[in-house]
Amino acid sequence: MAGSRQALNVLVLNGSLKHDGTPSNTEEVVELVLSHMREADTVETDVLRLSDLTLPPGVGMNEGAGDAWPEIYEKIKATDILVIATPIWWGGRSSLTQRIIERMDTFDEEAHAGRDVLRNKVAGIVITGSEDGAQATMAGIMEVLSFMNFTLPPQCCTYWVGEVGMDPKTDPQRRGANKSVDTMAKQTAGNLVAMARILKDNPLPEIT
Amino acid sequence: MAGSRQALNVLVLNGSLKHDGTPSNTEEVVELVLSHMREADTVETDVLRLSDLTLPPGVGMNEGAGDAWPEIYEKIKATDILVIATPIWWGGRSSLTQRIIERMDTFDEEAHAGRDVLRNKVAGIVITGSEDGAQATMAGIMEVLSFMNFTLPPQCCTYWVGEVGMDPKTDPQRRGANKSVDTMAKQTAGNLVAMARILKDNPLPEIT
Amino acid sequence: MAGSRQALNVLVLNGSLKHDGTPSNTEEVVELVLSHMREADTVETDVLRLSDLTLPPGVGMNEGAGDAWPEIYEKIKATDILVIATPIWWGGRSSLTQRIIERMDTFDEEAHAGRDVLRNKVAGIVITGSEDGAQATMAGIMEVLSFMNFTLPPQCCTYWVGEVGMDPKTDPQRRGANKSVDTMAKQTAGNLVAMARILKDNPLPEIT
Amino acid sequence: MAGSRQALNVLVLNGSLKHDGTPSNTEEVVELVLSHMREADTVETDVLRLSDLTLPPGVGMNEGAGDAWPEIYEKIKATDILVIATPIWWGGRSSLTQRIIERMDTFDEEAHAGRDVLRNKVAGIVITGSEDGAQATMAGIMEVLSFMNFTLPPQCCTYWVGEVGMDPKTDPQRRGANKSVDTMAKQTAGNLVAMARILKDNPLPEIT
Repeated sequence: MAGSRQALNVLVLNGSLKHDGTPSNTEEVVELVLSHMREADTVETDVLRLSDLTLPPGVGMNEGAGDAWPEIYEKIKATDILVIATPIWWGGRSSLTQRIIERMDTFDEEAHAGRDVLRNKVAGIVITGSEDGAQATMAGIMEVLSFMNFTLPPQCCTYWVGEVGMDPKTDPQRRGANKSVDTMAKQTAGNLVAMARILKDNPLPEIT
Repeated sequence: MAGSRQALNVLVLNGSLKHDGTPSNTEEVVELVLSHMREADTVETDVLRLSDLTLPPGVGMNEGAGDAWPEIYEKIKATDILVIATPIWWGGRSSLTQRIIERMDTFDEEAHAGRDVLRNKVAGIVITGSEDGAQATMAGIMEVLSFMNFTLPPQCCTYWVGEVGMDPKTDPQRRGANKSVDTMAKQTAGNLVAMARILKDNPLPEIT
Repeated sequence: MAGSRQALNVLVLNGSLKHDGTPSNTEEVVELVLSHMREADTVETDVLRLSDLTLPPGVGMNEGAGDAWPEIYEKIKATDILVIATPIWWGGRSSLTQRIIERMDTFDEEAHAGRDVLRNKVAGIVITGSEDGAQATMAGIMEVLSFMNFTLPPQCCTYWVGEVGMDPKTDPQRRGANKSVDTMAKQTAGNLVAMARILKDNPLPEIT
Repeated sequence: MAGSRQALNVLVLNGSLKHDGTPSNTEEVVELVLSHMREADTVETDVLRLSDLTLPPGVGMNEGAGDAWPEIYEKIKATDILVIATPIWWGGRSSLTQRIIERMDTFDEEAHAGRDVLRNKVAGIVITGSEDGAQATMAGIMEVLSFMNFTLPPQCCTYWVGEVGMDPKTDPQRRGANKSVDTMAKQTAGNLVAMARILKDNPLPEIT
């Protein structure tokens, strides 16, 4: 299906609190979405585990020695598709995902010129949690992404949450085995790449 | 345990979209909380199914023929414990529960004098949904209740939500069979009655 | 700018608690967005004041005598652009807006076939409140619209909220006089019509 | 009014992104609440600026060299009143406040025994933002605090947000000059200390 078209760049920012090498439920669902993207189109994927990076608090472009933000900033500017992936902690996005959103203020501080570079990019969301909070967490991230100038295609989010009080570690229906999660992942992946292709060929005009 | 103390009044406003006579998941969890209240203390309970009442939109005391609000308003003024019970529809409280919250503006319109009658009352929350949204729905209701002058004891909410994509109708762990829901219900019930007794004997002073 | 293209259909569902003939802050901001749409393209607009319609609680297609839902359902199916407009009441969308979202379950009940008719439609949001809650209310509605199959273009929401404790009735910066609201309205309007045109000419493929 | 009673301990966790020495809007409102507490009762206050502390991501008790969490953990256990103070960043609590909430999982990991030490403590909230998001941010924090076993008295939150698009730096009604913020601060302060006294003398029983 992908033909000889140029690959779409996909950047995933994984806000799991776990470090690389440790299994992350969020990464498991991210991989499900990426595998469906690979089936649907030609993609170059880059998954960053935020817990392994230095990301000091603040809203400047560079907040200290080793600050990873300037590099992430360039990666966001260069990507076609941005996926914000986060676990749920107490009903909200993780502190690492919130940190990235705060640092994205850099686009805002350059005002309209800053957010213009995000126009005609497409965004998706992946959420995992033990039992609740996916839709609210997703909603909060959608709001940020929309004002940041991203386009949100239909069913732009894939999530997994278990039943209240069940242990997700032993739940046989967990994540990968849950058919509705796979269906969501396929829809999210297909819509993200299709919308990215549409906007590449038919960019939104500047509103002046 | 209850001794010869005067019964505590408990008013439950059930915002289920289903009419009385139809089983409501929300009512099932409400009954679980009420049964634990009865074990913990002497209570007089009154459960209103909002879908059976006439509650026109608006923020006046009486919004038309048959308006049930004036009677509910008096019941809220007379209760010791108010329980807001709602199903989750698309991540939010039901339209019937939202209607009640809008109508509670009547207390607000009478300004500080209005909300004063709600002081030293205790509030709890019951939430049910097929798979997600309990904590966000609960949080939104807590915010309203706090500004309305209610006290929220620890673990003031009991909820049930299932795993994403599972059919709650066939899920063997549903609601009543879920031990963590029963634990929550016991905590919610016990804390509501204990706090109501404490505030009856030791009312908060007026802050002037 | 619009040329001789066929008009885009725009359906606005205004969830104000006020009845037609009474000024609605929400309608004021809706009209601002619509005026920018008319400058940007050829549009046919239809604004429904929900408070004037009969919309019983429930999730069936027809919930009783005079139920306006079947007609709204057909209008949603026929529109190119859907705008959900709501005041904020206690941090949430109005009971009338929540009622519409519940009734949209009709699309869901027809399962995938049902929501397919909403694919390649574009959605926007208008929010007004006296002082707080716009972004959370907007976020919650975005989540519903995305899963319902709508595409959300950049800056798809326009909102007005005042400073905490200020009386919006006497605030000289209120709504229409607030330049940032006009800027948002222009962006929202321009993006909605541009994205609707793009999707009319380049529809998203079905994901199978 | 305070008489010769033992001072109430008040711990404030300020999640501002700004470092100590830099004016923080959040600290300005915190000080307003604390000044009303001092008028109402005898209090010992401890305000921690989280941005100046080392707080690595994770859910263990000690997440690396210099981790400030073990000390904060002990301070929370010893306080009578906990105040969570946070700026709003894109509709949510700051990454530093979210980090603290994640680290509070330490109480959870010790399961019921862990959260038992938080019982009979009282909690309040302070929120500041440029224009929107206070009630949603407050609501999300209330939900965490309730399940963590804190009691939330009436009007437990004080917040300041400005009008959409206005520059809070030049707004003459900003924070301290806003009478409704002062009213909220007085109510929050008075209710927190009154409830702390009530629970010191009349602790909630254990629910078993």
